[in-house]
Amino acid sequence: MRGAKVRGAIEKAVVLLSGGMDSATLVHYVKKSLGVPVVYTVSFAYGQKHARELAMARWQAESAGVTEHIEADLSCFARLTAGKSALTDAAIRVPDLAEIGAADRRQPVTYVPNRNMVLLALAAACAEARGVPDVFFGAQKQDEYGYWDCTTEFVERLNAALGLNRGRRVRVHAPFAALRKADVLRLGLSLGVDYGHTWSCYRGGRDPCGACPSCVERETAFREVKGTP
Amino acid sequence: MRGAKVRGAIEKAVVLLSGGMDSATLVHYVKKSLGVPVVYTVSFAYGQKHARELAMARWQAESAGVTEHIEADLSCFARLTAGKSALTDAAIRVPDLAEIGAADRRQPVTYVPNRNMVLLALAAACAEARGVPDVFFGAQKQDEYGYWDCTTEFVERLNAALGLNRGRRVRVHAPFAALRKADVLRLGLSLGVDYGHTWSCYRGGRDPCGACPSCVERETAFREVKGTP
Repeated sequence: MRGAKVRGAIEKAVVLLSGGMDSATLVHYVKKSLGVPVVYTVSFAYGQKHARELAMARWQAESAGVTEHIEADLSCFARLTAGKSALTDAAIRVPDLAEIGAADRRQPVTYVPNRNMVLLALAAACAEARGVPDVFFGAQKQDEYGYWDCTTEFVERLNAALGLNRGRRVRVHAPFAALRKADVLRLGLSLGVDYGHTWSCYRGGRDPCGACPSCVERETAFREVKGTP
Repeated sequence: MRGAKVRGAIEKAVVLLSGGMDSATLVHYVKKSLGVPVVYTVSFAYGQKHARELAMARWQAESAGVTEHIEADLSCFARLTAGKSALTDAAIRVPDLAEIGAADRRQPVTYVPNRNMVLLALAAACAEARGVPDVFFGAQKQDEYGYWDCTTEFVERLNAALGLNRGRRVRVHAPFAALRKADVLRLGLSLGVDYGHTWSCYRGGRDPCGACPSCVERETAFREVKGTP
């Protein structure tokens, strides 16, 4: 199982690293499969309930041997978008996957307003300032169901805008966009990724809840690949 | 002199307000000319040397009678883009306009890496969360010479990406994109904008330097419209 569109030699990359399964796999993929020598990872504290993913991001960045890991305080984001996502607002309960009705599947309450454009724009700024032409984003196929900002089309349109830059142009790549989560997991296991140091649960309690959409998707992927969650 | 594309009744708007001439004019234009009842203004402290523009933004927001002015701490931005813009890095001198050579005019050292995409993405997130479909951006025609992220094409491509949203879709408007700075000034004067409470100088000293690109453009516009800077 391979990520899509492996290109010629890439010298430097910025990887948007949340600390979840997909982006953790991505940083190892960029380092090992693509063999990129200089990799910067960027994580954002944007007010997510599951901020413990940030410690996982640090761990994975170190495990992958990146050049520099940058953790940025984006706490203004939660204030700007106050009250609109179960992932950032204490007053909105994260639903179990089973509770999300068919009508809400295309943009559930776990969607965070325009988050991925914000984070990718910041990652692109970071890349541009460092003379890095390639930014990597861990969107995978299963996220498309509920998140317009995880789609291939979104990445293409963002790149159309970034392509207007007259100086150091930056391009966003989503090599897992055609892969299901189980495929990403299979790839990561083949690269030696330690998924004990990734965090998926949206609720961000001490232990994963096992019922939120992100927990269920994680467990389903593990069951498919290893026969056990 | 009118801004372009005045549409039918807009109920709510978010205005990206720096505290400079163009965006100060814009907030009054949106309130008075477009008659939008509910206006949110958003300003960002992103590490700019000329942070005194933020106080001007607050003043203009109050003067225009906006519903809420939000000033967000985006200090992570300067760290992410460290060392790459004369506007955010103490070690890089802001050049006089006369010192910027022809070759650098298309992307001078006063360009801040991907700043406008970052700020507009955040403004769009803020708008989406508040159920506001329209974001206003004060880019005007003269900025196009050096800033790809002030062009009409940039705004169009950003809107193409934002248009994929499956829920509360947000659109960015740049009604001054076809106007020169003197035209914006003329419009603002007709709306009663007090330009004594705007800040242009990139250097951000106690008084405007009078020589940086932003000071020169401001003075040129005043000379054209009023016969005196």
